Amino acid sequence: MTDSKKAVILSSGGIDSTTAMAIAKSEGFEVYSLSFSYGQRHSLELDAARKVATALCARKHLVLDIDLRLIGGSALTDEIDVPKDRDEADMAGDIPVTYVPARNTIFLSYALGWAEVLWANDIFIGVNAVDYSGYPDCRPEFIEAFERMANLATKASVQGSTSISIHTPLIQLTKAQIIQRGSELGIDYGMTLSCYDPTDQGLACGHCDSCLLRRKGFAEAGILDPTNYA
Amino acid sequence: MTDSKKAVILSSGGIDSTTAMAIAKSEGFEVYSLSFSYGQRHSLELDAARKVATALCARKHLVLDIDLRLIGGSALTDEIDVPKDRDEADMAGDIPVTYVPARNTIFLSYALGWAEVLWANDIFIGVNAVDYSGYPDCRPEFIEAFERMANLATKASVQGSTSISIHTPLIQLTKAQIIQRGSELGIDYGMTLSCYDPTDQGLACGHCDSCLLRRKGFAEAGILDPTNYA
Repeated sequence: MTDSKKAVILSSGGIDSTTAMAIAKSEGFEVYSLSFSYGQRHSLELDAARKVATALCARKHLVLDIDLRLIGGSALTDEIDVPKDRDEADMAGDIPVTYVPARNTIFLSYALGWAEVLWANDIFIGVNAVDYSGYPDCRPEFIEAFERMANLATKASVQGSTSISIHTPLIQLTKAQIIQRGSELGIDYGMTLSCYDPTDQGLACGHCDSCLLRRKGFAEAGILDPTNYA
Repeated sequence: MTDSKKAVILSSGGIDSTTAMAIAKSEGFEVYSLSFSYGQRHSLELDAARKVATALCARKHLVLDIDLRLIGGSALTDEIDVPKDRDEADMAGDIPVTYVPARNTIFLSYALGWAEVLWANDIFIGVNAVDYSGYPDCRPEFIEAFERMANLATKASVQGSTSISIHTPLIQLTKAQIIQRGSELGIDYGMTLSCYDPTDQGLACGHCDSCLLRRKGFAEAGILDPTNYA
């Protein structure tokens, strides 16, 4: 009944999810790419996600339109300024205003629903616990608890037939290690976008937490950063 | 920081969620009603949910527009016929085609996000494990696993300050007991809608699983069924 070779990959068009997708592909999975239009400040990341899905030969690329703005509570969806030029001590401190309440929980829930329809047992998410910006829903214990819940949520779990695995291949890697791994797998990171606050022309700001982590990652990996910064 | 008296209640405009909302209110919670426009076959249940929120003096009633049709896999969102006049043996067997993959997981995830923004610690969901139509995500073990996951998903969980409770006040009640409880709390069930397949005029079909359970519930409770059947 199930096709164990299908995997749903959460894709934001950034470095991490793109690398997770390449790893899924390298492990022999057929890629089903899932992105969200969730009221983020710009749609450039959806353009990037589409390019990535095409470049990595995803079997399908689904964009779900969900509106997290009505719930509110984040600089990524509300009219709150994205912080710029924070040093590492700042980033390591409080959970930043760019945190979107329950975002990964919501995204993984949709991935679970799609996986169930596709008869897929595998979901990939590019979270990592090292350069994770302090988001609670990037921690290994959160992912494990989600997986346990997922295995009680599906039709198959009642019938005792299959089980869902949430893969987090990047969870213990630094940004530099992620970039190294992806480069070995042939990813052109020029098509990805990390910036929280790009210009209208699609240039990365170079100063938000996400840009700072990206720049540092390329520098540490000793790989040329293909990003066009403003 | 937190206001322990706020609760998010998932509301479908049916008997169960309406009773759960009345119970939350009777326990002193300020009610934040959450409904979804998720590509269901009819919008009458959203009308019912709005009436219920008004009648029960919800502080806010939020309708989130999410489209589960793109994921597919259910008679409630796809062009699959809703089964009619099934006997109890049929209902007790396979998971019906009206099952929506990961629906409660997705709904609870949004409730979690909203609760986090509201600084609420309490979420009510009107699932029950007795007349539950065989849905996997109505089982107590699923709810417990969701609660465990939720308590690792939030900002507050990182800061160690609060914990989320998922309340399922109906989980061990039969439909008749639910109707009795709600009637004691003064609910007018005439404003609720259970039918999976109502007429264009808003009349309940009387023959889908949900109508059959509702009719039986009122009969067993010895309470007059206020429903307008076609």
